[in-house]
Amino acid sequence: MTRPQQQSVKRKLYSIIFEAETHAGKTFDILLLILILSSVVVVSLESVPELRKDYLPLFLGLEWAFTVLFTIEYLLRLYSTVRPLKYAFSFFGIIDFLAIVPTYLSLIIVGSQYLLVIRVFRLLRIARIFKLTQFVNEGHVLSKAIRASMTKIAVFLGVVLMMVVVVGALMYVIEGADAGFTSIPTSIYWAIVTLTTVGFGDITPLTSLGQFLASCLMIVGYGIIAVPTGIVSVEMAKVDKLHTNTRVCPNCHKEGHATGANFCDNCGYSLKQEDWQI
Amino acid sequence: MTRPQQQSVKRKLYSIIFEAETHAGKTFDILLLILILSSVVVVSLESVPELRKDYLPLFLGLEWAFTVLFTIEYLLRLYSTVRPLKYAFSFFGIIDFLAIVPTYLSLIIVGSQYLLVIRVFRLLRIARIFKLTQFVNEGHVLSKAIRASMTKIAVFLGVVLMMVVVVGALMYVIEGADAGFTSIPTSIYWAIVTLTTVGFGDITPLTSLGQFLASCLMIVGYGIIAVPTGIVSVEMAKVDKLHTNTRVCPNCHKEGHATGANFCDNCGYSLKQEDWQI
Amino acid sequence: MTRPQQQSVKRKLYSIIFEAETHAGKTFDILLLILILSSVVVVSLESVPELRKDYLPLFLGLEWAFTVLFTIEYLLRLYSTVRPLKYAFSFFGIIDFLAIVPTYLSLIIVGSQYLLVIRVFRLLRIARIFKLTQFVNEGHVLSKAIRASMTKIAVFLGVVLMMVVVVGALMYVIEGADAGFTSIPTSIYWAIVTLTTVGFGDITPLTSLGQFLASCLMIVGYGIIAVPTGIVSVEMAKVDKLHTNTRVCPNCHKEGHATGANFCDNCGYSLKQEDWQI
Amino acid sequence: MTRPQQQSVKRKLYSIIFEAETHAGKTFDILLLILILSSVVVVSLESVPELRKDYLPLFLGLEWAFTVLFTIEYLLRLYSTVRPLKYAFSFFGIIDFLAIVPTYLSLIIVGSQYLLVIRVFRLLRIARIFKLTQFVNEGHVLSKAIRASMTKIAVFLGVVLMMVVVVGALMYVIEGADAGFTSIPTSIYWAIVTLTTVGFGDITPLTSLGQFLASCLMIVGYGIIAVPTGIVSVEMAKVDKLHTNTRVCPNCHKEGHATGANFCDNCGYSLKQEDWQI
Repeated sequence: MTRPQQQSVKRKLYSIIFEAETHAGKTFDILLLILILSSVVVVSLESVPELRKDYLPLFLGLEWAFTVLFTIEYLLRLYSTVRPLKYAFSFFGIIDFLAIVPTYLSLIIVGSQYLLVIRVFRLLRIARIFKLTQFVNEGHVLSKAIRASMTKIAVFLGVVLMMVVVVGALMYVIEGADAGFTSIPTSIYWAIVTLTTVGFGDITPLTSLGQFLASCLMIVGYGIIAVPTGIVSVEMAKVDKLHTNTRVCPNCHKEGHATGANFCDNCGYSLKQEDWQI
Repeated sequence: MTRPQQQSVKRKLYSIIFEAETHAGKTFDILLLILILSSVVVVSLESVPELRKDYLPLFLGLEWAFTVLFTIEYLLRLYSTVRPLKYAFSFFGIIDFLAIVPTYLSLIIVGSQYLLVIRVFRLLRIARIFKLTQFVNEGHVLSKAIRASMTKIAVFLGVVLMMVVVVGALMYVIEGADAGFTSIPTSIYWAIVTLTTVGFGDITPLTSLGQFLASCLMIVGYGIIAVPTGIVSVEMAKVDKLHTNTRVCPNCHKEGHATGANFCDNCGYSLKQEDWQI
Repeated sequence: MTRPQQQSVKRKLYSIIFEAETHAGKTFDILLLILILSSVVVVSLESVPELRKDYLPLFLGLEWAFTVLFTIEYLLRLYSTVRPLKYAFSFFGIIDFLAIVPTYLSLIIVGSQYLLVIRVFRLLRIARIFKLTQFVNEGHVLSKAIRASMTKIAVFLGVVLMMVVVVGALMYVIEGADAGFTSIPTSIYWAIVTLTTVGFGDITPLTSLGQFLASCLMIVGYGIIAVPTGIVSVEMAKVDKLHTNTRVCPNCHKEGHATGANFCDNCGYSLKQEDWQI
Repeated sequence: MTRPQQQSVKRKLYSIIFEAETHAGKTFDILLLILILSSVVVVSLESVPELRKDYLPLFLGLEWAFTVLFTIEYLLRLYSTVRPLKYAFSFFGIIDFLAIVPTYLSLIIVGSQYLLVIRVFRLLRIARIFKLTQFVNEGHVLSKAIRASMTKIAVFLGVVLMMVVVVGALMYVIEGADAGFTSIPTSIYWAIVTLTTVGFGDITPLTSLGQFLASCLMIVGYGIIAVPTGIVSVEMAKVDKLHTNTRVCPNCHKEGHATGANFCDNCGYSLKQEDWQI
């Protein structure tokens, strides 16, 4: 086998495994997506006691099949990439490694449930596949809006955490261990459950003063749910505007035309570049 | 009876049963609405053990009355429509059939509770009636805004589901069966209950680490409730803008120009009435 | 006492009791507000078993004091108004009557708890007082926005109710009486508790299918909380715009100037009416 | 030591302790932040029964270390400020005093848990540090938006409280003590838990009428969560607009013109730079 031939095989493999432009690359991604999802479903079902009792051999067989397939995929990734070490220590390289190692470890270490869960992290591999699809743009708008409002959200979260710690400590003193407020950390957990309007009900205030303080916390939580919503809404509207409005009329320099507009809606000049006499 | 006469009877029946423009058509729709609602109320009340014991004959009588009326309606629909088969296999045709068949089946199959519930699906028939009223436009704006933000919502839901599976699996290992986290699917159910801020409290974390992870999940759920709100708000504002802008270009008939636009942004024709050479 | 004198007394009483422009009228309103609030607090405290046992004579005394004061007020209202009958049968007239009648009835009918609650309805009398303050405008903007989005909210509520009935009926069949889903109305109640993200946890699904359906309902509820928010936000923004933007430039006819603007921000023409040469 | 020297030491101390412009001032703030947070973590952990049993001497030692450090800081603050009395009775002066006094009091008063909680209020001291950072602006926008919508939120809260009291009183009569609605205040607490969609589930309606009323309250709570969101969103968008518009009129120095404005809306002076005669 000559050097150039091997190169071309590597390049072809790379385009199939790492990219999604070719037909083969798309098929590979879809197959991988199905494999990952079924592998996670199998791990989930294996954890159900009734099913594990009856179908353990089936689960083990499927698990080994998935592991062998993922191992082949991992080796091919290592082979086809130009810098194998850089890939191996990248975020997705580690995730890919963690996807196969628990099954092999289960041969040595017996009965560890923790290995079961590491397998669920395979799900994170889906993030790679979605990177290569049409969803990128949409995700971009979302993440851009969230990133733009990061400082405001940090201030908001800081105030919320301070409130939760102070109210938690107060409830610990007011209610005490009898009502389930056994320590300040537990009381803070209760305050978070209450402020976020989750309300499990595993710990609830019993005294009048405790119920009054809890009522205040609930109304605050119900009211300030508006704050992050307001922050993100405003940012989202801004990002959205930037996406639709980048064209400037060459005649009157009006900015921000609607998507698909052919003529400036202020002076009537054509917005198509081929019409411009420059 | 001659052919044309029969035709006109059919046409009249069609306009009464399927349309709502005429006075008779509106009356028919209102009567049908009352019938459907009272039928669903009767099914609901029949399921209450105390009431079934005392009023079973009454419920059975009412049920047969509704069934006979719905059967007559179904037959009239089949008779008056031009293509009976196409109607019978359409969405509403199947719903109409399911509305009557359980009562007849209950004569053959004894004691099936499942038949009771199929009767509740009669409620879906209301959707047809509302199609024929003023609510259409409003529903249109809503559904348009929701459809426009579908891709963004899909990305959001994908991220949420991934989060819920990973956190569910972690909680399964951290808390274990003693705290109610008996399997990964159950833990995922708990994670959904927590992230959506429902918080039943049937399963709750008992260890400090579990309570910490739950707190993080709650704060995330409380914070990201803003994201779908932001998405839909922005889309709703857009759809709303397009609806309030009723100006139509006299040249290319493009609808929905931005407020303050002087020229059509599709063909460049002036939108000012004094410029029109008509 | 001559007729005109009596008239002037009536008029003065009317301005004190029904209006809030004069100093005496404002003082009367504040006194009434304090009376109503303390009366409701007394009713609430009376319902606490431990307090009723110890302080019943005090509560009874206070209750009679409030009743006598409210009776005097009611008689003065009847006396000072021009059309006593119209007042007596108006919304606030009935509320005022219900505020005093339970205490007198308690002399005849012994031990009725229902009378206790009617006294709480005194709280609704506060609505009258707030009608006469600065809050009116703000409340107006709110109620205007809510009224404008009424049809959209009706469609939304209709869809939500349909969903809740269908899911409730399905859960009744899937889970059955063992899990607490004892009848279709109870199951519908559970579906509302779940969809609105309240999640009491008094009834929870136990089967896998039930938990799956519940998860779907929760995610839908978590997602569509955005819809009413979006509707009201858009309307609120519109109403808000209308309130700040009513001025039109007499020179270039540009609409929608900022509050407090003295000159048109499009052509620089004065917006003050005294500067216009018309 | 001469007077001027002492002055310069005082000034330097002041700039380190009270300000954050210098390098030393920033380092001091970060150290203080770490001290406060670790002190609160120690207080929280001390409240956990298992940890207190094993590590009490360690906790006591750390507590005294924190107290000594905070005492030195407090004395330095008193020394370096120009008006020590004004500082001592300011909001942050009292918080600083409360941060150190509980530990000293614990020598005299034995076993008071209340002193434990006062220590948690140290957390409020963080607010001072954050005043001196970049977060101020962001917090400003938030608090400005919240303050601007204060009246609207007050009306909203008033209506919510009225609703909660009336529904609470009704539920007290409908459900009674058997279902946990032992008094009107407890029923009001339940109504708040339900309306804010927290839903602890410690008290739940058992009768059909109670469940129906609860369902109505939940749907109202689910629906009106939109109202504060709408209010704050609109205000936030407004504040945001004012902030992004940094153009200042060269004539009257009015800030914050609308995007696209050609003339100052206060004095009518052109905002285009080519028109300025400078």
